[in-house]
Amino acid sequence: MELEETHVTPWEAEAFVDYDKLVKIFGAKPLTDKEVSMLAEVAGETHSMVRRRVFYSHRDFDIFLETFKTGKRCALYTGRGPSGHTHLGHILPWIFTKWLQDRLGLELFFQMTDDEKYWHGDSGSLEEFNSLAYENILDLAALGLDPAKTHVIIDSEDIGFLYPIAIRIAKKITYSTQKATFGFTDSTNIGMIFYPVLQISVAFLPTELYQEHVMVLIPAGIDQDPYWRIARDVAPSLNYPKPTQIHNKLLPGLGIGGKMSSSKPETAIYTTDPPEIAMQKIMKSYTGGQPTAELQRKYGGNPDACPVYKMYEMLFEDNDKKLLERYHACKTGALLCGECKKELAERVARFLRDHQEKRRRAVDQVEKYLIRYKFDVPKIRR
Amino acid sequence: MELEETHVTPWEAEAFVDYDKLVKIFGAKPLTDKEVSMLAEVAGETHSMVRRRVFYSHRDFDIFLETFKTGKRCALYTGRGPSGHTHLGHILPWIFTKWLQDRLGLELFFQMTDDEKYWHGDSGSLEEFNSLAYENILDLAALGLDPAKTHVIIDSEDIGFLYPIAIRIAKKITYSTQKATFGFTDSTNIGMIFYPVLQISVAFLPTELYQEHVMVLIPAGIDQDPYWRIARDVAPSLNYPKPTQIHNKLLPGLGIGGKMSSSKPETAIYTTDPPEIAMQKIMKSYTGGQPTAELQRKYGGNPDACPVYKMYEMLFEDNDKKLLERYHACKTGALLCGECKKELAERVARFLRDHQEKRRRAVDQVEKYLIRYKFDVPKIRR
Repeated sequence: MELEETHVTPWEAEAFVDYDKLVKIFGAKPLTDKEVSMLAEVAGETHSMVRRRVFYSHRDFDIFLETFKTGKRCALYTGRGPSGHTHLGHILPWIFTKWLQDRLGLELFFQMTDDEKYWHGDSGSLEEFNSLAYENILDLAALGLDPAKTHVIIDSEDIGFLYPIAIRIAKKITYSTQKATFGFTDSTNIGMIFYPVLQISVAFLPTELYQEHVMVLIPAGIDQDPYWRIARDVAPSLNYPKPTQIHNKLLPGLGIGGKMSSSKPETAIYTTDPPEIAMQKIMKSYTGGQPTAELQRKYGGNPDACPVYKMYEMLFEDNDKKLLERYHACKTGALLCGECKKELAERVARFLRDHQEKRRRAVDQVEKYLIRYKFDVPKIRR
Repeated sequence: MELEETHVTPWEAEAFVDYDKLVKIFGAKPLTDKEVSMLAEVAGETHSMVRRRVFYSHRDFDIFLETFKTGKRCALYTGRGPSGHTHLGHILPWIFTKWLQDRLGLELFFQMTDDEKYWHGDSGSLEEFNSLAYENILDLAALGLDPAKTHVIIDSEDIGFLYPIAIRIAKKITYSTQKATFGFTDSTNIGMIFYPVLQISVAFLPTELYQEHVMVLIPAGIDQDPYWRIARDVAPSLNYPKPTQIHNKLLPGLGIGGKMSSSKPETAIYTTDPPEIAMQKIMKSYTGGQPTAELQRKYGGNPDACPVYKMYEMLFEDNDKKLLERYHACKTGALLCGECKKELAERVARFLRDHQEKRRRAVDQVEKYLIRYKFDVPKIRR
């Protein structure tokens, strides 16, 4: 019921949602200056995504940071449903995750859910989703995630790492809970019904691998929150620490409303897009500006509802002062949408050229990221 | 609905059920002289469990035998939920399976469902069920199953063998199907809901391992039939041969009604029971005989509803003529229950002494049965 009202499940999430309402309904806490300062203290610097509340809510992020400060083992966890090429909406939390990895020296467990994408999709073979998982690892490498500290789990092949944990979780969760949390119906396939157990399992995997309580932080989109609510519910009875989260807002697509999504490829910028194509997509983007330059100069634009502005705010303008100037220039009509798009298109093209070169160089690095070559699977008999 | 009427699901099955009705409802075919002769032809001899219709119904057993005769690769599949020590009701189909393995030279895939037993049970840790799986392998070894041709899959540890197949099956099955087939409700845990996919996966595993269509025969209790109905439904669309079955009746427990079951340990003979204890259980068995020796001599007994007689018929009297004599001696009152029990107790004790000695000798043979040391897991990309 609540999910239908807010339209935020892992499979249905809008970009311009009422984030305050989400926090209220889901019971996460808004990120406050307190946590931002704590993070700055341990990291030695701040990050624009936190300053600007792109990461805007959390569960026990303060406790995670306190635990980190005591020197106890901590880890990061995020992931990807490899349903196609990676777009900018996907890499947004990964960029922040990489920063956390670098600044805090943390291991990252990264789940590639080829099983879930196969179960969820109408078309596509398991082989295809599995291949995309390997393809998507190139983006992790291109972003600079440390292969020595980044452990990728590809569900269909690395199930042995998750299943001993998943068995114990599955016993704690009834169909009734799943139905209420994810909106499943009688016609849902049983892969989808089982899948949440696997996404939750990774949150407990570091504790199994190190045979000590490992505090886990999950930086991910708010749409993934339903999983973590269940994970936190079952953790104590399984003797695992509750996983903590920091939630990001979803990057809007370049159309009218909606998150950047592979279901609307013309409004999404893929890391594999030729830079010229990406530039064209941006030049055709919706902005919410006035119909003519004249009216724009008179009435100004609406940056708060503009996906082009959001791209600057969330990814492509690190300087707070310059971002604020852009905001006001838009509002007052001093900056026309065409100029604003053109500048963004150039920044995006520059990013893509660099990223794609790094992707090419990463082709023989993929195996270094795979958990199967670095750890033994957890034992049943502990 | 139909299941409630007949009380035959994998978790609720009575021994003295109306087997004709079951065949009618579930759509399996009764085993006829035609299949019995075909089997005798390829096996070079008959088996009492087939002659007496302890194995009494089938699906495509004739097609299995035809395929076997052409020289195409065939395999056997059965299994066990390791919820405790093995009792005689469990080993009944294994004895026939061993005979099939010997006479037809077939590989056997044997699933130990420690995950399912953990999910189903009210108590017991996963570690305990996992340990029991290893313990139960000793019974396979003691029965003489060939370690070179018998491949045991312990779900919790060998999930990598099943999951690539399970992912594809799970996509084909809705919650609605599961609910109708197994009687699941909103309060069923999602392990139980997912589990059938894993039991079905093993039926397709030989085809994956050998990368050729392998015709599989499943000798097992009729209570397992719901799994195979779904397996046969989904097989064609996944390009696997439909698994074939031969169903045995369930060995009654020594009480009034009901199959031999670990939930009533006083009416079950375990392979680990000290022979004297087993003898005591048999001497205390219900028989359905008359209250006094005098009345018994006058009115006779009722072997058709007697668990002691069924033990002879299903396991402990191989000679058809002697069995028939016992039947008539009981019916006419010539044989008293006490004598009949005593003779059975002696045969069972002899069997147990021999079996337990073989179990002791098998302790260092367990690893030879584990699939993980013999095959690589199936690849996702075929």
